[in-house]
Amino acid sequence: MAIEGEKLKSAPRRLRLGMVGGGEGAFIGGVHRIASRIDDRYELVAGAFSSDPALSRSSAAGLLVAPERAYDSFAEMAKREAARRDGIDVVTIVTPNHVHFPAARAFLEAGIHVICDKPLTTNLTDAEALAALVEKTGLEFCLTHNYTGYPLVRQARDMVRAGALGELRVIQAEYPQDWLSTKLEASGQKQALWRTDPAQSGPVGSLGDLGTHAYNLIRFVTGLEPEAIAADLHRFVEGRRVDDNAHVMVRFKGGARGLIWASQCAPGNANAFKVRFYGGIGGLEWAQENPNLLIHSPLGEQPRILTRGGAGLGAAANAATRTPPGHPEGYLEGFAQLYRDFAERLTARIEKRKPDPMALLTPGVADGVDGVRFLARAVESGMNNSAWVAF
Amino acid sequence: MAIEGEKLKSAPRRLRLGMVGGGEGAFIGGVHRIASRIDDRYELVAGAFSSDPALSRSSAAGLLVAPERAYDSFAEMAKREAARRDGIDVVTIVTPNHVHFPAARAFLEAGIHVICDKPLTTNLTDAEALAALVEKTGLEFCLTHNYTGYPLVRQARDMVRAGALGELRVIQAEYPQDWLSTKLEASGQKQALWRTDPAQSGPVGSLGDLGTHAYNLIRFVTGLEPEAIAADLHRFVEGRRVDDNAHVMVRFKGGARGLIWASQCAPGNANAFKVRFYGGIGGLEWAQENPNLLIHSPLGEQPRILTRGGAGLGAAANAATRTPPGHPEGYLEGFAQLYRDFAERLTARIEKRKPDPMALLTPGVADGVDGVRFLARAVESGMNNSAWVAF
Amino acid sequence: MAIEGEKLKSAPRRLRLGMVGGGEGAFIGGVHRIASRIDDRYELVAGAFSSDPALSRSSAAGLLVAPERAYDSFAEMAKREAARRDGIDVVTIVTPNHVHFPAARAFLEAGIHVICDKPLTTNLTDAEALAALVEKTGLEFCLTHNYTGYPLVRQARDMVRAGALGELRVIQAEYPQDWLSTKLEASGQKQALWRTDPAQSGPVGSLGDLGTHAYNLIRFVTGLEPEAIAADLHRFVEGRRVDDNAHVMVRFKGGARGLIWASQCAPGNANAFKVRFYGGIGGLEWAQENPNLLIHSPLGEQPRILTRGGAGLGAAANAATRTPPGHPEGYLEGFAQLYRDFAERLTARIEKRKPDPMALLTPGVADGVDGVRFLARAVESGMNNSAWVAF
Amino acid sequence: MAIEGEKLKSAPRRLRLGMVGGGEGAFIGGVHRIASRIDDRYELVAGAFSSDPALSRSSAAGLLVAPERAYDSFAEMAKREAARRDGIDVVTIVTPNHVHFPAARAFLEAGIHVICDKPLTTNLTDAEALAALVEKTGLEFCLTHNYTGYPLVRQARDMVRAGALGELRVIQAEYPQDWLSTKLEASGQKQALWRTDPAQSGPVGSLGDLGTHAYNLIRFVTGLEPEAIAADLHRFVEGRRVDDNAHVMVRFKGGARGLIWASQCAPGNANAFKVRFYGGIGGLEWAQENPNLLIHSPLGEQPRILTRGGAGLGAAANAATRTPPGHPEGYLEGFAQLYRDFAERLTARIEKRKPDPMALLTPGVADGVDGVRFLARAVESGMNNSAWVAF
Repeated sequence: MAIEGEKLKSAPRRLRLGMVGGGEGAFIGGVHRIASRIDDRYELVAGAFSSDPALSRSSAAGLLVAPERAYDSFAEMAKREAARRDGIDVVTIVTPNHVHFPAARAFLEAGIHVICDKPLTTNLTDAEALAALVEKTGLEFCLTHNYTGYPLVRQARDMVRAGALGELRVIQAEYPQDWLSTKLEASGQKQALWRTDPAQSGPVGSLGDLGTHAYNLIRFVTGLEPEAIAADLHRFVEGRRVDDNAHVMVRFKGGARGLIWASQCAPGNANAFKVRFYGGIGGLEWAQENPNLLIHSPLGEQPRILTRGGAGLGAAANAATRTPPGHPEGYLEGFAQLYRDFAERLTARIEKRKPDPMALLTPGVADGVDGVRFLARAVESGMNNSAWVAF
Repeated sequence: MAIEGEKLKSAPRRLRLGMVGGGEGAFIGGVHRIASRIDDRYELVAGAFSSDPALSRSSAAGLLVAPERAYDSFAEMAKREAARRDGIDVVTIVTPNHVHFPAARAFLEAGIHVICDKPLTTNLTDAEALAALVEKTGLEFCLTHNYTGYPLVRQARDMVRAGALGELRVIQAEYPQDWLSTKLEASGQKQALWRTDPAQSGPVGSLGDLGTHAYNLIRFVTGLEPEAIAADLHRFVEGRRVDDNAHVMVRFKGGARGLIWASQCAPGNANAFKVRFYGGIGGLEWAQENPNLLIHSPLGEQPRILTRGGAGLGAAANAATRTPPGHPEGYLEGFAQLYRDFAERLTARIEKRKPDPMALLTPGVADGVDGVRFLARAVESGMNNSAWVAF
Repeated sequence: MAIEGEKLKSAPRRLRLGMVGGGEGAFIGGVHRIASRIDDRYELVAGAFSSDPALSRSSAAGLLVAPERAYDSFAEMAKREAARRDGIDVVTIVTPNHVHFPAARAFLEAGIHVICDKPLTTNLTDAEALAALVEKTGLEFCLTHNYTGYPLVRQARDMVRAGALGELRVIQAEYPQDWLSTKLEASGQKQALWRTDPAQSGPVGSLGDLGTHAYNLIRFVTGLEPEAIAADLHRFVEGRRVDDNAHVMVRFKGGARGLIWASQCAPGNANAFKVRFYGGIGGLEWAQENPNLLIHSPLGEQPRILTRGGAGLGAAANAATRTPPGHPEGYLEGFAQLYRDFAERLTARIEKRKPDPMALLTPGVADGVDGVRFLARAVESGMNNSAWVAF
Repeated sequence: MAIEGEKLKSAPRRLRLGMVGGGEGAFIGGVHRIASRIDDRYELVAGAFSSDPALSRSSAAGLLVAPERAYDSFAEMAKREAARRDGIDVVTIVTPNHVHFPAARAFLEAGIHVICDKPLTTNLTDAEALAALVEKTGLEFCLTHNYTGYPLVRQARDMVRAGALGELRVIQAEYPQDWLSTKLEASGQKQALWRTDPAQSGPVGSLGDLGTHAYNLIRFVTGLEPEAIAADLHRFVEGRRVDDNAHVMVRFKGGARGLIWASQCAPGNANAFKVRFYGGIGGLEWAQENPNLLIHSPLGEQPRILTRGGAGLGAAANAATRTPPGHPEGYLEGFAQLYRDFAERLTARIEKRKPDPMALLTPGVADGVDGVRFLARAVESGMNNSAWVAF
């Protein structure tokens, strides 16, 4: 509870980071860059920031990246950085979905570790190919399912796996937004454009953008394996080419039941991602918009409010905490945690030692395959009038 | 916002009320009695408070009901009260579900108006028979879906129907509890016993006890008609004879989509009934556990907090409000509203005048049939591996 | 946590209740009437409902009170009811403040028990005279500091007195409203008129209407005795004749410190009464607008959410609870608790037995004197530039 | 509401930053470092991280600062950095309070811009001397009253100053913590040690650590000038040498009234800083622990929930926003905003242009003097039995 003094670990050099995507007009690229800086383990030194070479170069200038390391394409970047003595240690891919696969492949083939935004790919074949490539190359891969970086999500994971809820029975996950309540893509807004274009986002809209986060978080926290899912995907906005609302029922192996709701047209919701876990002897509730609280309800007892940094938290949560309780951390810190963990993994590799076990929680390529499989199964169910589809 | 002085309407005599069920050891009977007293429109004068005659009589004594009007059975009560010059105006039936049908029939056939707890009956055949009988007799019938009595639920109804949300798209309703997380019925606890006994509760558990409330509220607020439902009913507690968790997907006519979740085994939830309505231009959110707030989110604007009794509420909400904003009303007042409305309908009938239109919102026998149909369709879907069942 | 069946106690006759004030256009009278009905221990049989005889009579008709028991004045009522064989057992005084003293005196002198709204009187002399009269007559007296009737306030009292917080250090109490942010009294609104008229309300506005509640609740929960107070009373609305905002610092015997804030001009606050208690080993927080929760924070542990009717509550809270957890009770039920408790005290007296100890918590005339003393000391401090005034 | 693409401004070089304090075992230094990195406008290149030279050097190594720029004292650092061609542009002082003055003076005299933690100094004489020195040197000075960096605090400022609340009447500010509920300083905990040592923290404890934040925020948002204050300072923990709880009444010029509560012994509160502003036509409420919401209550209308990044926010709030609504920003981003603003001011100076007006909101040395004056007046009042002390 008290303010603790900081422990300054002996620091290795910063990792050299390259970026694919994230040029001017992008959204998530800036988030990744802040996330990479918060814990001071990276320096951004190269990038193919846009598929438009001029934009890539002007973006590089704005980011203080040397002109000669502003590339016209990820292919060129992979090749030339791999050839440099001071080439990047790791690339982060923050493009629309359809670029994830070719870009990740290019860097893996060039021997460079990869951080990649989610969903991993736009189809299961690509996802599995990428997983095979990661295995073959032995390189490190981080999939930025950023909500797994929140300390209290890690606390939930520890508690669930330690049996604090008993055998899991019911899981409720929802991720509603409202920004696509109208046909925003018709206005040319860049974020809306690619996220509703099947050629760039894959065959899913709300389900791919939001539902995968919900699915991933359930898997991260519980470890439960899905047995079958039944989905009702819907497009409310006329003329939209992908779903903007998704209802998914899940049956997990062992008998637990789940509901996932993703929506981009629920007015009043910005990023109201919320998950609830119920077992035979307790419940847990966490909401992304106020992520510094976790409600734990042991059956028959008074619910407790767990606070990030506060009393009674476990090692995983505390390892992901930067500020004392009551000084809220947020989205950027959660995102930064993945970067910090991955830096530890890469640094340990460089230093030929075992990484801190806490750094192994970051989602990897297998989680990416799992998420793409979830999307594929949901689409199949949706096209079969919500029939249960085995996982 | 200011404290308003009360307007004392010229009062008619109090209505003479009889009760079936609600003797010692019952739960909901006491709630009905308080609800009937709050607005001073009834006096309890007769009852068949228990199927055990001795208990019926001792309960009557405790309730200051004259010994000669404490009956051994509802059949006897219906007959003898109908024959009295000062016989009851109306009976309220607060028994386990399986008694609703025969008791309501007996009083209707005796020419006595009926208030009945929900669900209406344990099967659709009985429900339809009762509806026919109400029509034939021309008597008044009130089904105590009590959540429709909350002022802000009525406000939501007015807003939705006036188009404040635009065309409805998504409806989320959930009613989790935790009191049946263990096999409480094995302990002999009376409430658990009948609610998990198909012979008394009908073929459903959580869905009948909770899910019908959720379904009814959606119907009450929106007027949307279901087109088809797909249900995943589950029993988590071993040996239980009815469902204790239900996931229901709904497709409404016109294209709206809904999710209903009912559970009796979600630790940390007491009566966490919550509904959310989303349309093309706005959203609404209401939660029973803090019922004096309604959040209205017009698309693209700041969400507003509507407070019971506060600024900008409509006539229906204000007509159901007893205390100024900030002095919370709760479950008993919501319940009382149905009694008050029904008293107005009966009194208007006695006085041969039109009732206050606000008093016509109370659910009736048709809503009861609708709710029982919902249960029947959900059970059918559940037994068909969650296939969509047309409504 | 489970829904418990009701226990119907053997019921005595209902107590015969008279009312002074509460006629058409009044506010709090209706609240008292509902409160008296909720637990079915009273019947309203007589009243001097207004200082305007015609209004008193028409109000009586609206309330189903027999015409011959609708009185023109409280003096006449006290005399004639005392003379009736079936005269009232108890009177409830719900007038503007300045009538409390003469009316209470009249009924006490007529041998009739008294329920009286707060503050007890408009000055300390009257308050002490009334206390002496209660003692002399040996009659029962209930002061309706209604917030003491909330179950979780009683729970807080039990916990504080059992040492759950350790030695008390800091107490924060606030009661802001906004309805007098403008000069509403100029519009003739009846509630505003008398509450801002020193001749009717006494020399205080917000402090008397709201601050006394805050002060009383602190005293009720903690039993701490004030040593000195320093007050900054202020009128924000031009031309208003009493304070509409009050800041009071309190030093309690033993060293605890308190702050009380009362306001009638804090926009956004309806009845946002909130109290927080902090001791050496824990804290407690309760807010009237969501009164079914009490937050308990043991030092160094996770805060717990205590729910009315929920796990781990004590006897006092449970004795004041009518519905299961999650079915919110509110203002009217809290108010009703005082009526129920007082009925038990009067009934025990009639039956010549000891009352249930739980029924002894209702505030009495001594609490009234204490509250009036608080107001007198605050006014004295306010007139002395907020100097500390010994209590 | 929609996710907007990022605009990458043409970036200047990063500013060279030095740090005084913040070595291993410190707390706030790490916060400053993260804050300086988030927007990528600084690089940390030098430091006197501890008064213990060995610790300063080992800390430098951990922070990837070159060994030759790890100094044994701030005096040496000021001298040698001023002499370097690539010397620091700006120093940040993150030591215990008593070092603020001599360190800031040393760097100002060396011609180096200063960022300094609050409170400015431990006494008013020093504060005024520092202000004079800033004026004389013409250098830039930033006082890290970090809560002024939160976007919604800036929104509140804009709204209040634009008259959204009307004339201000009542201001409530509170900042309770619980970490010093026991005599933690006796354990040797470093943070507790210096914060309760008058030689290091000045004559105040909770008031200096927390109360100044509350006071500063009121001043920042409202611009109101205090006329007089009356304080009741108290030490609850036996043997502690400074106050651990403070109640302060404030009278502002023009008639507004305020209350400030600061506490380090209120169990259940981590950093529960909360401010409320009430004027003739509206109210505003903001709480640091959930800083992404601001409640605006126009008198007589429904309260609105303003969300960071959401609908209807002004330029100042939006300029301080990095992520879309619903992706919470927190303490570190608020803190970073001061660094970003100050970078803009310094960069504009380097580039000989006018800074973005939004960057001028950061508190400066005058705010520091104001805060120290607040402390001095409060101590004077406290020693005079809470008498009003003119400001």
